[in-house]
Amino acid sequence: MKIDKRVVIVGSVAMDSIETPFGKKDEILGGSATFSSIAASFFNRDNISIVAVVGTDFPEKYIGILKQHQINLDGLEIKEGKTFRWKGSYLKDIHCPVTDYTHLNVFEDFKPKIPQNLKNVPYLFLANIDPELQLNVLNTMVSVKLVLCDTMNYWIHTKPKVLLGFLNKVDMFLLNESEARDLSGEDNLINAAKSLMSKGARSIIIKKGEHGVLYFSKDFTFAAPAVLLDDICDPTGAGDTFAGAFLGYLSNSSKINERNIRKALVYANIMASFTVERFSVNGISNISQDDIDKRYKKFVGITRF
Amino acid sequence: MKIDKRVVIVGSVAMDSIETPFGKKDEILGGSATFSSIAASFFNRDNISIVAVVGTDFPEKYIGILKQHQINLDGLEIKEGKTFRWKGSYLKDIHCPVTDYTHLNVFEDFKPKIPQNLKNVPYLFLANIDPELQLNVLNTMVSVKLVLCDTMNYWIHTKPKVLLGFLNKVDMFLLNESEARDLSGEDNLINAAKSLMSKGARSIIIKKGEHGVLYFSKDFTFAAPAVLLDDICDPTGAGDTFAGAFLGYLSNSSKINERNIRKALVYANIMASFTVERFSVNGISNISQDDIDKRYKKFVGITRF
Repeated sequence: MKIDKRVVIVGSVAMDSIETPFGKKDEILGGSATFSSIAASFFNRDNISIVAVVGTDFPEKYIGILKQHQINLDGLEIKEGKTFRWKGSYLKDIHCPVTDYTHLNVFEDFKPKIPQNLKNVPYLFLANIDPELQLNVLNTMVSVKLVLCDTMNYWIHTKPKVLLGFLNKVDMFLLNESEARDLSGEDNLINAAKSLMSKGARSIIIKKGEHGVLYFSKDFTFAAPAVLLDDICDPTGAGDTFAGAFLGYLSNSSKINERNIRKALVYANIMASFTVERFSVNGISNISQDDIDKRYKKFVGITRF
Repeated sequence: MKIDKRVVIVGSVAMDSIETPFGKKDEILGGSATFSSIAASFFNRDNISIVAVVGTDFPEKYIGILKQHQINLDGLEIKEGKTFRWKGSYLKDIHCPVTDYTHLNVFEDFKPKIPQNLKNVPYLFLANIDPELQLNVLNTMVSVKLVLCDTMNYWIHTKPKVLLGFLNKVDMFLLNESEARDLSGEDNLINAAKSLMSKGARSIIIKKGEHGVLYFSKDFTFAAPAVLLDDICDPTGAGDTFAGAFLGYLSNSSKINERNIRKALVYANIMASFTVERFSVNGISNISQDDIDKRYKKFVGITRF
């Protein structure tokens, strides 16, 4: 029997306008589903589908970038109206953007519709959207094997009960440091992870950006520093790239075990480091397997003792 | 011929009054030479000497703690007057204290005098004191093999030229993140390290506290996360413990090579994690080699992939 390795990613496809010390770009390709699906495609080609919405103004060339990575776009709804737009600046702090505007546009009424042929997909990434929609998607899936779930501070503050209510349906919950603290009410990250696990999450991944990543489950704990980079051009999409690469690697692994989870986290780290070196998806869209392998090997060298 | 493994540590011995979420302690044993010498003694017992000054009010029981670790106190001057006192609170931020007062007392006119029989010691740790005094000590030593040097933002802002002027005499320069940025003028830590190396430092160790440590030299780069701790009781002395353990381990290694530097950095990490779990030196003063080995092993487990 052929093993089903298909992955569905539910999230946003957006057009970002971004200013960083490295320049200013208008309406470049962005969105959580975009970054995560492209990152995932490097590890599990032909098995990545996205469920998202764009407006009728969405450029054909951006569709082309997704297609170039063999992303299945059956679940990409094209709706009358404008695509989700975000404008932000990293001029003050390269790690934390100041938002100029968020125009949800067609994303405002986004109700993710999982295409019939994807409802039995084993791997699901719920990227950052309204937790009520995440729960709806969860309830739609009929034989999901592994659920990775992301969120953001906005939902933690406005809908914490919804989020906490379905933690027990999530295998791996992704948060950054402040999100982990806010959702758990614990300042210490280990205690934050323990608290979220006691509320049902089977494992917690805490993304610390330039400081690396922590993973917690009842079976083991893993910590890795970030990849050291001379320059961070644009951090937009780093977390989504991380998530996509992680699930892409795991979904194509022979087993979901400790060894492969550790490796998946390191590959996720590596892919995120490519993303931040360029604007939009330029950091990952044209790299080769050899580029990934070289950086992985270099990371092994930097961290071994 | 017997290999000379002796270490001299020049720094402060102090009495700290500290408040953290875990309690309030008055006039407990502190100071850079205290923490670093005790940490070093675990790896190179009987070979650690300190050069420091205390007042005539310094409690005999604190001398006893240093003696208990076989620290050579020939260079500990006891001067008429009061011991250096610092009072700080970590109630607002467990990683960064608010200083209530700093009374330098006898430390104000401290002129480190290296005892004659220690001038030919091969390993030197210049803990955080006035860089002019650090330079004087450097010029006093006749056959030093490895110099580890620490500093603080105060000296970086008031005497940057003195510091930068003797970087070429320093083998390993220790800084925290903000110190590295301030002294180099570079925001990115890799560029900061490169800049300081271009000014003469042979290697740069950047302590990132709860985020671990980075090491840079022309030969290799090393990154490690911090030890994960459920509770941080009192971070005072963590950096000094790190430095002392690092040099203690290296000075007792068969060779100063890449492998041993990496291991020394991890042991330094481990020892600092013990320090922050208790007030004063209580976290390290009563641990066993077995405690250290267990935590080292656990760290290997958390970081391997």
